[in-house]
Amino acid sequence: MAQVAIVVGSASDLGRVEEARHTLQELGVGCEVMVLSAHRTPERVRQFALGAKERGIKVIIAAAGLAAHLPGVIAAYTTLPVIGLPLARSSLGGLDSLLSIVQMPPGVPVGCVSIDGARNAALYAASILSLADERVAAALEEYRRRLSQGNP
Amino acid sequence: MAQVAIVVGSASDLGRVEEARHTLQELGVGCEVMVLSAHRTPERVRQFALGAKERGIKVIIAAAGLAAHLPGVIAAYTTLPVIGLPLARSSLGGLDSLLSIVQMPPGVPVGCVSIDGARNAALYAASILSLADERVAAALEEYRRRLSQGNP
Amino acid sequence: MAQVAIVVGSASDLGRVEEARHTLQELGVGCEVMVLSAHRTPERVRQFALGAKERGIKVIIAAAGLAAHLPGVIAAYTTLPVIGLPLARSSLGGLDSLLSIVQMPPGVPVGCVSIDGARNAALYAASILSLADERVAAALEEYRRRLSQGNP
Amino acid sequence: MAQVAIVVGSASDLGRVEEARHTLQELGVGCEVMVLSAHRTPERVRQFALGAKERGIKVIIAAAGLAAHLPGVIAAYTTLPVIGLPLARSSLGGLDSLLSIVQMPPGVPVGCVSIDGARNAALYAASILSLADERVAAALEEYRRRLSQGNP
Amino acid sequence: MAQVAIVVGSASDLGRVEEARHTLQELGVGCEVMVLSAHRTPERVRQFALGAKERGIKVIIAAAGLAAHLPGVIAAYTTLPVIGLPLARSSLGGLDSLLSIVQMPPGVPVGCVSIDGARNAALYAASILSLADERVAAALEEYRRRLSQGNP
Amino acid sequence: MAQVAIVVGSASDLGRVEEARHTLQELGVGCEVMVLSAHRTPERVRQFALGAKERGIKVIIAAAGLAAHLPGVIAAYTTLPVIGLPLARSSLGGLDSLLSIVQMPPGVPVGCVSIDGARNAALYAASILSLADERVAAALEEYRRRLSQGNP
Amino acid sequence: MAQVAIVVGSASDLGRVEEARHTLQELGVGCEVMVLSAHRTPERVRQFALGAKERGIKVIIAAAGLAAHLPGVIAAYTTLPVIGLPLARSSLGGLDSLLSIVQMPPGVPVGCVSIDGARNAALYAASILSLADERVAAALEEYRRRLSQGNP
Amino acid sequence: MAQVAIVVGSASDLGRVEEARHTLQELGVGCEVMVLSAHRTPERVRQFALGAKERGIKVIIAAAGLAAHLPGVIAAYTTLPVIGLPLARSSLGGLDSLLSIVQMPPGVPVGCVSIDGARNAALYAASILSLADERVAAALEEYRRRLSQGNP
Repeated sequence: MAQVAIVVGSASDLGRVEEARHTLQELGVGCEVMVLSAHRTPERVRQFALGAKERGIKVIIAAAGLAAHLPGVIAAYTTLPVIGLPLARSSLGGLDSLLSIVQMPPGVPVGCVSIDGARNAALYAASILSLADERVAAALEEYRRRLSQGNP
Repeated sequence: MAQVAIVVGSASDLGRVEEARHTLQELGVGCEVMVLSAHRTPERVRQFALGAKERGIKVIIAAAGLAAHLPGVIAAYTTLPVIGLPLARSSLGGLDSLLSIVQMPPGVPVGCVSIDGARNAALYAASILSLADERVAAALEEYRRRLSQGNP
Repeated sequence: MAQVAIVVGSASDLGRVEEARHTLQELGVGCEVMVLSAHRTPERVRQFALGAKERGIKVIIAAAGLAAHLPGVIAAYTTLPVIGLPLARSSLGGLDSLLSIVQMPPGVPVGCVSIDGARNAALYAASILSLADERVAAALEEYRRRLSQGNP
Repeated sequence: MAQVAIVVGSASDLGRVEEARHTLQELGVGCEVMVLSAHRTPERVRQFALGAKERGIKVIIAAAGLAAHLPGVIAAYTTLPVIGLPLARSSLGGLDSLLSIVQMPPGVPVGCVSIDGARNAALYAASILSLADERVAAALEEYRRRLSQGNP
Repeated sequence: MAQVAIVVGSASDLGRVEEARHTLQELGVGCEVMVLSAHRTPERVRQFALGAKERGIKVIIAAAGLAAHLPGVIAAYTTLPVIGLPLARSSLGGLDSLLSIVQMPPGVPVGCVSIDGARNAALYAASILSLADERVAAALEEYRRRLSQGNP
Repeated sequence: MAQVAIVVGSASDLGRVEEARHTLQELGVGCEVMVLSAHRTPERVRQFALGAKERGIKVIIAAAGLAAHLPGVIAAYTTLPVIGLPLARSSLGGLDSLLSIVQMPPGVPVGCVSIDGARNAALYAASILSLADERVAAALEEYRRRLSQGNP
Repeated sequence: MAQVAIVVGSASDLGRVEEARHTLQELGVGCEVMVLSAHRTPERVRQFALGAKERGIKVIIAAAGLAAHLPGVIAAYTTLPVIGLPLARSSLGGLDSLLSIVQMPPGVPVGCVSIDGARNAALYAASILSLADERVAAALEEYRRRLSQGNP
Repeated sequence: MAQVAIVVGSASDLGRVEEARHTLQELGVGCEVMVLSAHRTPERVRQFALGAKERGIKVIIAAAGLAAHLPGVIAAYTTLPVIGLPLARSSLGGLDSLLSIVQMPPGVPVGCVSIDGARNAALYAASILSLADERVAAALEEYRRRLSQGNP
């Protein structure tokens, strides 16, 4: 069952989150990937966010470019941890999506990873899950060990 | 009756939109001011945006700082013209709110005015209304005339 | 008859506003496209701006790169709503044109859309026209409906 | 017992994380606050990071300004989730600390919150803990409920 | 008779060009100072620019903040050398006015000096005039000599 | 005889100033092009700057990328008008060379044109020369006339 | 024996420091190149930094991109001069690595060279060594002489 | 005898380098402080740089704001290690001086420390001197030891 939901603002960005899906799979964490736009499909984003916890989702990775509202909009509807993944889709190199995601006002947080940092979004989700899941914790430790040996 | 709704993300920013309210009043345009947060009160933002047209609102001015999602979130729920007003509330001088507002992805537009440009937000709303309202058009022409004489 | 005028600062940028023209056509909004430079042909810009309202133009989309003065210069000569469309033509990724357009001083507003956001410029023009034109309003609602179904 | 460790790079920044401590307390989450510098006391940072999990720490909030290496350096020594809190201590308004924290290279993630966003750092820590702690989950839901009523 | 015209976009910025006026006076260069806005009084800017050469003006210093179109708009109407002086009036520290002035498109140049660099604008005007005016050349050499002795 | 000297910081940048040379030629202004580096050949820069006026040079165009000191260093040794031409040679898109050129401290001015704006550098030089040279003035007016007809 | 250690954060960046190695070789300075990551192999970075002085290393060049902590982390463990070399590996053109390296807090300095400035990193290392090594001093003087003759 | 020369571009910035002087004194390193401007007193900068080595200077700290050419200009005349110290004197928060100093073109390096980082400039100079001076090395080690105990 999916513990992590990876939400991406546009179908054309699915390739940019593939490494997140792949990394979670590698760590044995079930995930689902879906396309939901804060601007084009706001009702579906809302339904998704309101129902995520009940469906067993533990962590949400939300990826978007430009004025990247998706992570913040999801965070507004749930208290699950939301990981924001800024995508460099504009001529500004992703500075727009980075600031749109990370500069959340007080009260509703998003944890932001690096621009186009899909792998780190997955690893951060795993680190959160690892607190209550021994298998994920072990997989993560093993991943780190391999990393330190130059085998990412 | 209010034709323009001025929405501000935080009660502490009410002072920053006062000039917008005042300018609209000066131009004889009815407006309402309300505090709605895209992050703290998403349901109320949604209800407001979905019902605005029916309530007779023609133009929405949405002001916010930091990761300023309010204008885009409102625009996602209505086809009324939304004017985004970035507020310089952070240590980045409003660059964060500017980019969060202006860089909307294709499909859902927001018209953005200058950082802390409350007066211009009001004037832009009036210029939109003036297309179908002779009185506003006349008031706007008169405003411009006075402006050109150094009496803003 | 054209209700929207799309003005572009340089003939070499005509391709960058094509999507605006196309989107307006799709929504059944008549538009004209012309090349006018605030710097190379200031008199023609002035004549255009002063006469636009009389010729039946309702909304002006002005697109320019670099020190993008075109939208502001047009706005100085008319009270019609002017939509500024920043183009990323320089090595700064359009930050120059964005700031040149959006940071208008108090008194003369421009509504700015995203960098290279030609489609949104058209949609914003349509949202303005829709206030007094049922057909445009319906076309816009239909556009949004299709958008929410993933058919932009 | 402390579940969250708040680490700050300099004693002079203790005031800037006070709101994090306070918010965690409000949510009933035990925390400890300590001053550790990635540059001045690297050995102590390393000892802290290597031993944190064993001491029962679940989430680490690391706050720093300028070239803010503290969150990344801690993350290099532990797989616990690290929340990076950029502080605006320089003439660049915190852009330096933001980029130093958020742009972590692939393999070792940090979840970054807004510049000077101490409260959000605490709320994010709580959202992580809430996955396995019903009391924190309830406190967080209650916090959100109050927030939506304008009582932050 | 005035050889240099100092034009400033807003009466509230007169103080910011005072050092330019003073420096020109010190160098024995006649100048006039006037308030003209590219946006609020476009016709007056145009009349000024079109008539400047005939009135004996040799160099124009145009100072403006925000979306600083004044220097470029003047340059569009005259082939006299225009010196752009960006003013730091916004929360962006003058980056907006700098880019609005310096990034002129090919064909119509503006020579831009530093943000709030009123003195340098005057010195640059004098260096231009000095090419055909021995007295200004001598005054400028003397100014430099004093400068090199620490007496600015 | 050369009235304008075009100095470029590196032989590899000669192509980037070719349009300046070409434009001056088109306007009938004699010019010389040379490679001089403020950092690699400081003595030659100094000799050039100290002797330029005597050799009949009226205006100096100095082009450089990165930490572009060339225009400022030349301006330090002469009171001739120096036009700075920033080149976009780095990963920062020329922001580094722009700021290095335009932000000259009080006392020694440089007139800066747009990034990679070689043509405008030439036109600005011509506008300066036109004050005392009827032929250049006429050529410049003719250039503008052609420009306004879309024949740059 | 190696007097300079060139450390690079990722094996994929080895090509980016090749010019540093080559330049040192040209100047007759022995160097070693190694891959060490502040985040993936923190223990090895620490061992390297703690032991460098004893092994005869005099200067350390540390190259990294993104959130470039490597130079600062090394500097935290040694009082040898550390030269930071920012690499432009992200969509932000290296601004992130530049600020991460250069903005070190008081107490632990890093000397930063230009983005992707591998050659300058080597030359700076040589200039440091030249203070106590006549041969390096002579080689450096010779390098400069050739440079001034256009033979880098 | 002075081993370190601290050069500052303007007398008004003397206070900003005081901490450098003080730190060097604390470490037992002789230093001299002087005001030299790359733009206002270029000949004196040249004389200083050309003669520094002979006078026994080992390291030069050059501090400047705005278009900060001083460090690069000095480095052009000497092969002594030059430490650039950017000062935040403009409305851009020192970004201009940082880029003007750090982005030196290939061939002539400057080692740049943080904006307004006077203490680090001194410590870096000491670390360079410590390679050949046991007393400085010992003083630096002692400084670090105290630093790690929270006594800067």
